[in-house]
Amino acid sequence: MKPLGVGLIGTGYMGKCHALAWNAVKTVFGDVERPRLVHLAEANPDLARSRASEFGFEKWTADWHELIADPEIDVVSVTTPNQFHAPMAIAALEAGKHVWCEKPMAPTFADAERMLAAAKASGKAAIMGYNYIQNPVMRHIKTLLSEGAIGTVNHVRVEMDEDFMADPEVFFYWKSEIAAGYGALDDFAVHPLSLLWFLFGHVEAVINDMVKPYADRPLKEGGRRAVENHDGANVLMRLGGGISGVLMANRAAWGRKGRIALQIYGSQGSILYDQERMNEFELYQAGGRDTEAGFRRVLAAPAHAPYDRFIPAPGHGLGFNDLKIIECREVIRAISGEPSSAIDFTDGLRIERTVHAMARSFSERRWVEVEG
Amino acid sequence: MKPLGVGLIGTGYMGKCHALAWNAVKTVFGDVERPRLVHLAEANPDLARSRASEFGFEKWTADWHELIADPEIDVVSVTTPNQFHAPMAIAALEAGKHVWCEKPMAPTFADAERMLAAAKASGKAAIMGYNYIQNPVMRHIKTLLSEGAIGTVNHVRVEMDEDFMADPEVFFYWKSEIAAGYGALDDFAVHPLSLLWFLFGHVEAVINDMVKPYADRPLKEGGRRAVENHDGANVLMRLGGGISGVLMANRAAWGRKGRIALQIYGSQGSILYDQERMNEFELYQAGGRDTEAGFRRVLAAPAHAPYDRFIPAPGHGLGFNDLKIIECREVIRAISGEPSSAIDFTDGLRIERTVHAMARSFSERRWVEVEG
Amino acid sequence: MKPLGVGLIGTGYMGKCHALAWNAVKTVFGDVERPRLVHLAEANPDLARSRASEFGFEKWTADWHELIADPEIDVVSVTTPNQFHAPMAIAALEAGKHVWCEKPMAPTFADAERMLAAAKASGKAAIMGYNYIQNPVMRHIKTLLSEGAIGTVNHVRVEMDEDFMADPEVFFYWKSEIAAGYGALDDFAVHPLSLLWFLFGHVEAVINDMVKPYADRPLKEGGRRAVENHDGANVLMRLGGGISGVLMANRAAWGRKGRIALQIYGSQGSILYDQERMNEFELYQAGGRDTEAGFRRVLAAPAHAPYDRFIPAPGHGLGFNDLKIIECREVIRAISGEPSSAIDFTDGLRIERTVHAMARSFSERRWVEVEG
Amino acid sequence: MKPLGVGLIGTGYMGKCHALAWNAVKTVFGDVERPRLVHLAEANPDLARSRASEFGFEKWTADWHELIADPEIDVVSVTTPNQFHAPMAIAALEAGKHVWCEKPMAPTFADAERMLAAAKASGKAAIMGYNYIQNPVMRHIKTLLSEGAIGTVNHVRVEMDEDFMADPEVFFYWKSEIAAGYGALDDFAVHPLSLLWFLFGHVEAVINDMVKPYADRPLKEGGRRAVENHDGANVLMRLGGGISGVLMANRAAWGRKGRIALQIYGSQGSILYDQERMNEFELYQAGGRDTEAGFRRVLAAPAHAPYDRFIPAPGHGLGFNDLKIIECREVIRAISGEPSSAIDFTDGLRIERTVHAMARSFSERRWVEVEG
Repeated sequence: MKPLGVGLIGTGYMGKCHALAWNAVKTVFGDVERPRLVHLAEANPDLARSRASEFGFEKWTADWHELIADPEIDVVSVTTPNQFHAPMAIAALEAGKHVWCEKPMAPTFADAERMLAAAKASGKAAIMGYNYIQNPVMRHIKTLLSEGAIGTVNHVRVEMDEDFMADPEVFFYWKSEIAAGYGALDDFAVHPLSLLWFLFGHVEAVINDMVKPYADRPLKEGGRRAVENHDGANVLMRLGGGISGVLMANRAAWGRKGRIALQIYGSQGSILYDQERMNEFELYQAGGRDTEAGFRRVLAAPAHAPYDRFIPAPGHGLGFNDLKIIECREVIRAISGEPSSAIDFTDGLRIERTVHAMARSFSERRWVEVEG
Repeated sequence: MKPLGVGLIGTGYMGKCHALAWNAVKTVFGDVERPRLVHLAEANPDLARSRASEFGFEKWTADWHELIADPEIDVVSVTTPNQFHAPMAIAALEAGKHVWCEKPMAPTFADAERMLAAAKASGKAAIMGYNYIQNPVMRHIKTLLSEGAIGTVNHVRVEMDEDFMADPEVFFYWKSEIAAGYGALDDFAVHPLSLLWFLFGHVEAVINDMVKPYADRPLKEGGRRAVENHDGANVLMRLGGGISGVLMANRAAWGRKGRIALQIYGSQGSILYDQERMNEFELYQAGGRDTEAGFRRVLAAPAHAPYDRFIPAPGHGLGFNDLKIIECREVIRAISGEPSSAIDFTDGLRIERTVHAMARSFSERRWVEVEG
Repeated sequence: MKPLGVGLIGTGYMGKCHALAWNAVKTVFGDVERPRLVHLAEANPDLARSRASEFGFEKWTADWHELIADPEIDVVSVTTPNQFHAPMAIAALEAGKHVWCEKPMAPTFADAERMLAAAKASGKAAIMGYNYIQNPVMRHIKTLLSEGAIGTVNHVRVEMDEDFMADPEVFFYWKSEIAAGYGALDDFAVHPLSLLWFLFGHVEAVINDMVKPYADRPLKEGGRRAVENHDGANVLMRLGGGISGVLMANRAAWGRKGRIALQIYGSQGSILYDQERMNEFELYQAGGRDTEAGFRRVLAAPAHAPYDRFIPAPGHGLGFNDLKIIECREVIRAISGEPSSAIDFTDGLRIERTVHAMARSFSERRWVEVEG
Repeated sequence: MKPLGVGLIGTGYMGKCHALAWNAVKTVFGDVERPRLVHLAEANPDLARSRASEFGFEKWTADWHELIADPEIDVVSVTTPNQFHAPMAIAALEAGKHVWCEKPMAPTFADAERMLAAAKASGKAAIMGYNYIQNPVMRHIKTLLSEGAIGTVNHVRVEMDEDFMADPEVFFYWKSEIAAGYGALDDFAVHPLSLLWFLFGHVEAVINDMVKPYADRPLKEGGRRAVENHDGANVLMRLGGGISGVLMANRAAWGRKGRIALQIYGSQGSILYDQERMNEFELYQAGGRDTEAGFRRVLAAPAHAPYDRFIPAPGHGLGFNDLKIIECREVIRAISGEPSSAIDFTDGLRIERTVHAMARSFSERRWVEVEG
């Protein structure tokens, strides 16, 4: 079987992360063909050449259209800034390539809809780069839920917090422009929503209150400029099956570095998780004596597949980049027409629809139902 | 100076807790007169007699009116079920006694208003038994906020969770009747609200979504009965000074035993607290090198007054009942006309007004402003 | 039945702690007579008078012999500095009083032996004030061990660390004199040894290496003085039943405030405990699926008797001083001739014999068997 | 510059881990040539062929001598069982190859000495695979120590615990044979010793007490066989600079999965670390107000180089396998004659000498000085 020809557009952190995954997926999993890293595109030609060398790609180009036209390429990793996702993904799909695109889909919902339409028309695999759902610990939480380990879930809380916007004296930059989106809502909420989708399905109704901790920020050139969007969002939600939810997202939360904290409450127990300690979760199960009732802290272990493909001993820990390798395996599965746990453009669009519903609920100060 | 004559109505857990506090306050603090434990009232005469002996009261009665009429009594601890608070507190105030009443004020807002009116008319100290604010750790958090240790606060989250209603097969009892109130909202929300009041002042606007995890519960006599109120409540809030808040209360949260988890985010740092580990808090302060940035876990210490009145060494830990001793000292302060950190009927009523606004916001599915 | 007449010698922290316990024991437990706080002795007459008032004692004296001669007194709490324990306890026992003496027994082993001899001759209850064993959580750990919850124990580690001597610029004071004892060994090791005794029985053999982090300390009057004893001790131990143990004690361990960390390993599981979080323990039990294997964090609860005598709800937490109230109940039990979990002078002496064996093992750089 | 030709002997977990590192080192670090994965050796020819394909090697052989004779190879990764390390490493060095050998060096000290002699004779880089020291967090701890962030270190404790031998009914296998070594001492102690060496230099004197929790274990064929070595070891140590240490190693510690817990106490602060949470450490620094004194939990961040080569945001976490990539970069540095933090055969031998001194101290029940 011919090895999968890979093209990569974009060489920032996510480009590197895709490159690492394409390099490692065969060594880790064994059960796939080693992909061929064919072509790398990056607008800056010097950077394109050096990154092609670093990341192990055979060819490079400063014009991504060349990459998409390359007949040796089967799948395109799109890791550029958000506004380029739609044109690149659509062009790739129209050229008959599979697409693995970093989230979110696009700044406007219309563009995201066009991406899905292109995916449907192409018949190719079109996958969004949601990696948190690929954590073996998260997968096991899903297994526990489906086994009824905590009974019927009735309530869930999820918090996503970082602090890169926490300093009021951080210079105004594009993230504070309304053109970049609603703020924490676009930036962050898609991640918790991907986890909620993975574990419970889609959100049905929302009411959102957004937070603008700082009215303005300093400009590098002096003076200050008004902040145009919101660094925090707090959302009450209703999910399917009568589950009530609360989602809190904040990129101005001092001390939080990569927090995605999940609390899941069911009729027979509870589950806790925090991305900052991604190699563990906590489980409380009803029953037994009161004298030993408590949350059990479980460390990631080979029994949580596919942790075993990385390490044969428990408690040694996967890293953030390893999640992209697992995701890469799921992308290959989708390309091969096998069942895959990756999030495709259909579900990706539904997540973004939820974000837009949240934004509307804030501006209209009322509960909003999410369509679809 | 004549020692303070104390009457106690009610001999449940809170009655015992008040008795322990009245017994210990002089030994702990030294700077007050030893109160005289004069009279104990309890409807069951056998229980009244035995509890008077256990708790160290000189006299007992099965008729609380006798206690209130007792001229040797200066202050009355009201620790009976909620529906008795209003008649007892009002009678005591009208008899010219100071009152220390367990929270909440009363099942109906009208009764709570009558209590405040009686307090105002009497000119006596009328104190609500909110003990969590008396934790030396909580007091120090307030000090840190006032010192600007985390800059200007812009966001706060508070969760109060226990699991005594988490089992769907817990028999239906009065807590699930609508006559007992809204559910978690009355039962729990007043506690976090007392902390928010203590730290930030009152809540200005709310939108609340309530949760009924189980539609019905078994009856002891067989069959099942529909649950009439809500075991969970999730509330978006606006506090003064532009602070956004989220309050989550749940008495059906498996694994949570006495959780009141507070997250406070400011422009220069963050503070975390959890009542289940009431002898510590966490502090993050901006500044310094990125290589050592982190939350600092601080153990309760003598420097957090009045911890030093209990223990001269750090890290040894106060207990839940000790908070009532500290509160007792504040009650005596209020009686003596000194500045006191206890919550009086005026602020107590404002807290309950907030609860009722939350309930209305749920039934009307909209944001509600809290008056006053 | 005549109430127990109590005398208290010493009004430092432990004096206050005993006073609180004698004041509260009846209210908490209900099932004893309320003790009568008769007589307080304190060398400074002004302090004696004011403390008698604060602590609720009827009489006071600046001469402790008067207190011991007082016929209204049945039991004497000895809470003075260590060098006074032997004369006071022996005099009290010889006067036919029960004795509740703070640990350790005495600076010299000979004095401790005389204390035990006096106790045996008197036939009275002679109890050492080891309070950590009275924690309901610790009692439950003992129950778990006896139930075989973690199988047969084969290894135990205990660390006791504080930081009051951690600063090299702490002024030289009596704690650094050899006359005050070996250092951390006397100061701290008795506490972990009381826990080991409570859970496993006595230590059989030891080898100890002591640590002197700072050769000298500043004098208030200028200059520096050589430190004469050791702020740290590390001990390998053999306990009965083939259990291997490690004991580490350090009073110069920055950041540790009241740490007594216990790790117990058995053939079917493990138990962890830390005094800094005295209202919880962790339990790991073998068996079950690897996917949910983990330490369970258990919060103190009413099911851990006698926590229920203090608080009827789990997760609310006892304080350090509450342990002395529980111990007081055990002292009364011992006085009444009932089975008591308190440590009497016989076991107390055995603990001190172990400390002295540790010291010898250090000076002789070899393993030493503990007699008895 | 010609790319580095890599040979790999052994295809177990460590073989895979080396393969992943050789595959990723260029993509992660950028500043090296992409190594050429030339030749893989594995005794089983079918496995050799499939692993060569999976791991990305060009050639394979069932005879490792062929690999060593291959002129295209510059460096040989030795990842076979311990008894093969000496012959393979020595042959490779004698053939003029650089060697990267997994720890420990060899079951006998004589063989380890021969390895060092071969390394010295060859003039080639000869590196031991100690990966824990390569954790960016551990590197930063070393930086903090050298900066005096916690003053002068006076005491250190290290515990390494797992539970794969904790079940007394684990079948007897080679790990319990004396031929496999002393037990936990060989298996585990080298890891903590590598950390101690990295942070403080070598251990000077030891006294060790070993633990055999289970006298025998079941045989698969029925019956039981006596365990010949010790699953636990407890060691008192003296390090240079007057530092006292305690090392505890236990492979029968239920609930511990990959624990390497380090406590470092200095004159101005303390540092804590646990390998089970390898992306964080805790720092306590003296000074400041008592009211905010506490351990600060610091999450791994780009500022802890070379974390930034993997992820540009803090709190996202490296994995265990990432440490081998960092180590690989250090191996390349050593090969290039640059300063390298990897442990070479000289220091590797010193670590093993310490292990043997510990064993002797146990059998002779006395303190033993470590030579060299």
